Amino acid sequence: MTDFDRLSLNTRTTESWTLREAVEGAAAAGLPAVGLWRDRLAEAGIDEAVKILHDNAIRVSSLCRGGFLTDHDDAALDDNRRALDEAAAVGAPELIIVAGGMPDRDLRSARQRLADRIAELVPHAAERGVRLALEPLHPMYCADRAVISTLGQALALAAPHPAANVGVVVDAFHVWWDPDVADQIAEAGRQGRISSYQVCDWLVPIAADPLLSRGMMGDGVIDFGPLTEQVTAAGYRGDIEVEIFNREIWDADPATVVETMKRRYRDLVLPGLAVGA
Amino acid sequence: MTDFDRLSLNTRTTESWTLREAVEGAAAAGLPAVGLWRDRLAEAGIDEAVKILHDNAIRVSSLCRGGFLTDHDDAALDDNRRALDEAAAVGAPELIIVAGGMPDRDLRSARQRLADRIAELVPHAAERGVRLALEPLHPMYCADRAVISTLGQALALAAPHPAANVGVVVDAFHVWWDPDVADQIAEAGRQGRISSYQVCDWLVPIAADPLLSRGMMGDGVIDFGPLTEQVTAAGYRGDIEVEIFNREIWDADPATVVETMKRRYRDLVLPGLAVGA
Repeated sequence: MTDFDRLSLNTRTTESWTLREAVEGAAAAGLPAVGLWRDRLAEAGIDEAVKILHDNAIRVSSLCRGGFLTDHDDAALDDNRRALDEAAAVGAPELIIVAGGMPDRDLRSARQRLADRIAELVPHAAERGVRLALEPLHPMYCADRAVISTLGQALALAAPHPAANVGVVVDAFHVWWDPDVADQIAEAGRQGRISSYQVCDWLVPIAADPLLSRGMMGDGVIDFGPLTEQVTAAGYRGDIEVEIFNREIWDADPATVVETMKRRYRDLVLPGLAVGA
Repeated sequence: MTDFDRLSLNTRTTESWTLREAVEGAAAAGLPAVGLWRDRLAEAGIDEAVKILHDNAIRVSSLCRGGFLTDHDDAALDDNRRALDEAAAVGAPELIIVAGGMPDRDLRSARQRLADRIAELVPHAAERGVRLALEPLHPMYCADRAVISTLGQALALAAPHPAANVGVVVDAFHVWWDPDVADQIAEAGRQGRISSYQVCDWLVPIAADPLLSRGMMGDGVIDFGPLTEQVTAAGYRGDIEVEIFNREIWDADPATVVETMKRRYRDLVLPGLAVGA
């Protein structure tokens, strides 16, 4: 066991790396896993990706991403089924679901369509042995990206389905502000639904492009101690992904970014894993 | 009774107007009320402001603002007591409280200090006959502006105190995304704690400066129908303030902004007042 045996590099953190570079970079850094985005997977091809992962003994903590299930038509369902197939092919146990935003001003209906389409995807998810990991995104993304805004809401959406098929993502960046987050993490744990724990920081001020406002742990305002302890106390023992969208980090040398990530993880996240266990 | 007998012009919407210009502009537009900011009040002086309001038969729906109660020292308490005095002097029944952000990474302690200081202010609020109107701000402002992030949390903070002394603000911009908002509005109504209903729109994309991302009703994604019906069904019969921080609107002719505001209010907000009653 090392300090990093649960630390997973999401491929968006090292945006300029190919899949091969990311997997080899993770292996060189002593990491056990990557969080894969489908664009990198498509570039490499699934067979080649599987070979690269195998050759480097790197597992896939999750595949990013399915979702965008809120449109008026259900054209996205086929793509989500393909995403489940891809996740199964690369051995990813979880498919991250980013809900999708509002095609019009009717938020309630968008949320209902999402619920209906999750139900339509569950049989395929069960067949592939891949869990739909519902990710609440920060409420500032509700309009244009994800109508799931809290962990409590994600749990309510998951409730009709077996925990083996529908889980929830705890991404510190998205949920740190929520006055109810501790209770919701505990409840997600009781239900066996924590699909993924992801860490990156909330920067102040918010970046002009809010999508690129995620920061390296320690560069923002999030105290990772309590969240990490809560997730651990809730029974989560899976990988911890670092997924950072940030222009400065993308422009930096990826291997250096990985080293910084390891150091910050060891200092700011790792202690909570021991306390919460 | 006119279409506009509950419409209140917040002085920030017509940023370039002095207090006199705003009050006279509201009166000329047939509005009954303004929401006053303390900077405009300080410029005019309280006696002069009271005279201007009286001469124009304009009431003050609320005074903006007290708050910023989360620092490690309690230096802000004196200023909040002065704000309560000022609210009483101009006949504002509600003092809007913007909680304040996080002086460090300890969000839980910041929220506790806030709760403690609200308790310290309640006697002075009661003495002055002015209610502390706790305003949940959108979670994107949690770090640097307001650690009250949901209406439910505002109600929990208000709970130890009489409804006559501590209320909550329902600002569409801040709460529209919340999956629990309908229940929370109903609960706020049951408790008699709705201090203010404020409307402006959520723009997509968010402005590069998130503080200036508030839009004129109709320019963004909020459906004001359901929220207005819920607030009305919850028993709220007070003024409805329009408070817009937006560079383009600030650069436009204020009288034209007021006319646009009236038209959008009539088309998008007013119908909900009838349905919900």
